[in-house]
Amino acid sequence: MEHAMPRSAGHESLDQMLSVFGATPVVTDPSQLRAAETATFEIHRTIPMIVRPETREQVQECVRAANRERIAIYPVSTGKNWGYGSSVPTADRCVLVDLSRMNRILDFNEKLGYVTVEPGVTQRQLYQFLQDKGSRLWMDATGSSPDCSVIGNTVERGFGHTVYGDHFANVCGLEVVLPSGELLHTGFGGLPGANATEVYRWGAGPSLDGLFSQSNFGIVTRMTIWLMPAPEYFQAYFFQSSEEDSLAGFIEALRPLRMDGTLRSTVHIANDYKVLNGIQQFPWQEQMPLSRETMKRYQKTLKFGRWSGSGALYGSKGQVAEAAKRVRRALTGRVSKLEFLDDHRLAVAARFARPYRWITGWDLSRTLELVRPVYGLMKGVPTDATMASAYWRKKTPPPASPDPNRDGCGLIWYAPVAPADGGSVTTLVRIAEDTLLDHGFEPMISLTMIAERSVACVISIAYDRDVPGEDSKAITCYEELSHRLTSRGYYPYRLGIQSMSLLDSDRSRSEFLTSLKKSLDPNNVLSPGRYLTSEAGDRR
Amino acid sequence: MEHAMPRSAGHESLDQMLSVFGATPVVTDPSQLRAAETATFEIHRTIPMIVRPETREQVQECVRAANRERIAIYPVSTGKNWGYGSSVPTADRCVLVDLSRMNRILDFNEKLGYVTVEPGVTQRQLYQFLQDKGSRLWMDATGSSPDCSVIGNTVERGFGHTVYGDHFANVCGLEVVLPSGELLHTGFGGLPGANATEVYRWGAGPSLDGLFSQSNFGIVTRMTIWLMPAPEYFQAYFFQSSEEDSLAGFIEALRPLRMDGTLRSTVHIANDYKVLNGIQQFPWQEQMPLSRETMKRYQKTLKFGRWSGSGALYGSKGQVAEAAKRVRRALTGRVSKLEFLDDHRLAVAARFARPYRWITGWDLSRTLELVRPVYGLMKGVPTDATMASAYWRKKTPPPASPDPNRDGCGLIWYAPVAPADGGSVTTLVRIAEDTLLDHGFEPMISLTMIAERSVACVISIAYDRDVPGEDSKAITCYEELSHRLTSRGYYPYRLGIQSMSLLDSDRSRSEFLTSLKKSLDPNNVLSPGRYLTSEAGDRR
Repeated sequence: MEHAMPRSAGHESLDQMLSVFGATPVVTDPSQLRAAETATFEIHRTIPMIVRPETREQVQECVRAANRERIAIYPVSTGKNWGYGSSVPTADRCVLVDLSRMNRILDFNEKLGYVTVEPGVTQRQLYQFLQDKGSRLWMDATGSSPDCSVIGNTVERGFGHTVYGDHFANVCGLEVVLPSGELLHTGFGGLPGANATEVYRWGAGPSLDGLFSQSNFGIVTRMTIWLMPAPEYFQAYFFQSSEEDSLAGFIEALRPLRMDGTLRSTVHIANDYKVLNGIQQFPWQEQMPLSRETMKRYQKTLKFGRWSGSGALYGSKGQVAEAAKRVRRALTGRVSKLEFLDDHRLAVAARFARPYRWITGWDLSRTLELVRPVYGLMKGVPTDATMASAYWRKKTPPPASPDPNRDGCGLIWYAPVAPADGGSVTTLVRIAEDTLLDHGFEPMISLTMIAERSVACVISIAYDRDVPGEDSKAITCYEELSHRLTSRGYYPYRLGIQSMSLLDSDRSRSEFLTSLKKSLDPNNVLSPGRYLTSEAGDRR
Repeated sequence: MEHAMPRSAGHESLDQMLSVFGATPVVTDPSQLRAAETATFEIHRTIPMIVRPETREQVQECVRAANRERIAIYPVSTGKNWGYGSSVPTADRCVLVDLSRMNRILDFNEKLGYVTVEPGVTQRQLYQFLQDKGSRLWMDATGSSPDCSVIGNTVERGFGHTVYGDHFANVCGLEVVLPSGELLHTGFGGLPGANATEVYRWGAGPSLDGLFSQSNFGIVTRMTIWLMPAPEYFQAYFFQSSEEDSLAGFIEALRPLRMDGTLRSTVHIANDYKVLNGIQQFPWQEQMPLSRETMKRYQKTLKFGRWSGSGALYGSKGQVAEAAKRVRRALTGRVSKLEFLDDHRLAVAARFARPYRWITGWDLSRTLELVRPVYGLMKGVPTDATMASAYWRKKTPPPASPDPNRDGCGLIWYAPVAPADGGSVTTLVRIAEDTLLDHGFEPMISLTMIAERSVACVISIAYDRDVPGEDSKAITCYEELSHRLTSRGYYPYRLGIQSMSLLDSDRSRSEFLTSLKKSLDPNNVLSPGRYLTSEAGDRR
């Protein structure tokens, strides 16, 4: 790469490298390095060393050292970027900067509803913090591991399930270590004594927050996260339909409610494969991939639909009742089942699960086990139940402490965005399902009505990395999927580390970003190739 | 200025200049140039020429010509940046690029609720467009002139009165002419055939929209504006209190409703001076400035409070009723008056205005005249009623076609942000009122609960520019106000052209912006000094 490609780190001896980062703790243990090089799909990147700064000052030191020595560095918060590359860098031979030790909660305001955190703060930690404080505020949790970083997910523009589900839309006041080692505060953050840093997003002058999401322009070392007040009343709704073509109707029926503010949080719709993936591992008595006919059988036996949806209502009893009435009206005639669930009903169900089974033979407690994590996510409670789905095609059950990297779980996520239009979403899903089935994978798909007008679709390619040939089959499928979808105008909201060139067709944008990158990081030491490919990086 | 300061335009003869911009229409008529150099406060900038591009290609040509000839250019949409500098550039001898002829509405989608416009599209034009289409969508209008540009207000991060009141938070898909003359599309906009450009804000990779708000990094030539669906039912609420210290209570009572989603739109609170300013011109029989005691008299006579608030509820009848109940509960005991108004009540009041006056002697139609524009703004209807307030201290009444620049209206706006905390807002208002009174001006203040956690305060210094000495008195007052407020941590959300150095105390940020600017605009031809002062621009 011509653009000031940093000397690759391996050119020095380990001893030389060790001295570079001064007082910052380093890891050189080969087994830890190999673990950090492992994702949930095949990717080859050598990580010569991991540094684990404990303070912002150490992050600054690392960045300065990297510039001095022309060593590429690659920060991760906790490295739990499952399905998109875990902790593996976009370029070979980067020193990994693991920020997980910077895990302080620096500020908390119950009245104004925010918390200021460092990148090592996990979902679990933040949740526990709020519990310990007896806070009436809810975080928003993404359905990934409770051990994933709140900042990490937010700068990747991940999403969750409450009113604050669009994570990056609900933060402000970033502190960023620039590639130069200098500090930058966004919004009002750098102004002496500013009162509104934590509560007003824009500040004055150019708004810079967006520059540091999905980018390699800086390392976010601090961020204020807005928290929603726990509502007086909460009610979840679940719906399903066995009709193939009911999906378009769901979108058409719910979009107006999303747009008029009746539905203030994301709505989640899963196809049958996705639900089965949530319930159990691959049923090995069946042929691979599970055909649509087989799935119909499972829909009947396990009582789920071709499409299953969920969402939640937040407010006073009266507000929720009014919203529920509107949801019911919108979905009537479109669903085979629509149920509302609140804390009271959930508690009653749990109490009667055992006698219920005794009388009816139906294991209600199993149903509850499935519903609880989803229900919890809609209240901002992180769950570890979803991690099991990465073990879909493993022959052994998910372990108590799941680690998809370690356990050879194959998982590639691809997440295109569509307008909240029934026809457009249906086309997207059809292409995705056909492509995965063509390549021998079960098309597990969820659709999230992430904002008023748009739907984010998450497609999982799940397989067993320990089966020879599957890694390359999965990548072939992924590439074909990406090709078919982008050629129809469906672009992903987020990129895996193997696919950073996906946006290169927008040449003006690539040139613009490259020019920014050269200005901010002339030695190209920070996460080379992240959301900015070498091809673009090369150009002068 | 050392940083590649463009040759100032006046160094050529007009003939030479004329040829520079090729086919783009130019204006050299001295009276039009002088008009463009005039703001609502004293500021001296010579504008040697105005160019009026009609297409994006002409904008690109202008930018390229500016680079070739090292001429500084300064784009304005329609130049109605009242109180912050009108159309006057931040630097002397810039060629004004007037974008008002680029006034096409390029795309419109009733179902997904958006419109794509050029910078010359005015509030009036967009409103009329929606009326003509028989659309069920509402725009959000700012309380400035109907002839102000929708894009202009949005890139300055102005705000309005509906659910979509935070303008910049409700747009996406910007098309930008960069200082190089190249085009850039934000979000998914530059990707071939992208489906979600108009509906999904972030795109993939770094989010760049914010860079082009309050900045001199590019010229926005196209933008998609989201529109809210007209609610089934609309109800406005008005409240007031004569108690000095009720302001803090209002903020404390309403913030929880803003945070829990009961209040989805901005709440507007005005002090007594602001209300009087909305009703009439300066009462010349009184002493200047109007004292607090005098104001108490006016509060009684004209039946307004020390603090008057308004806001609106949007939804189904049931949703609005529930929200109204919560508003009533929150404000009970804090207000001397709380009224709800809907279309039906407004129509009835209008029908009975004449007999009502005949019976009671109270001119209800006068009240309606005052209420209607505010009521309309809450439904996204632009109004020209607010322009009259700029004529506060003029001795002649506001003309039918108001033009504050032309008519010597003195008006300086200063708009600091506070957390939505009763104590903090009260402190801010106290400082502002004291400072203006100390300097002989009536402190006209509005507070807008612009987002869940923050309040934007707009302070007007209104005077008569034709009275000798007033211009400099106003600037002195402004500077003192800015000094007192920033030293207490209250920074403005937006800067007037005379105050672009206000954020210089954040040196890291200035350096960061300067480095971006040098990279994007090496010849510094685009709006030199706009949100980036020469002091910072100088530094190497």
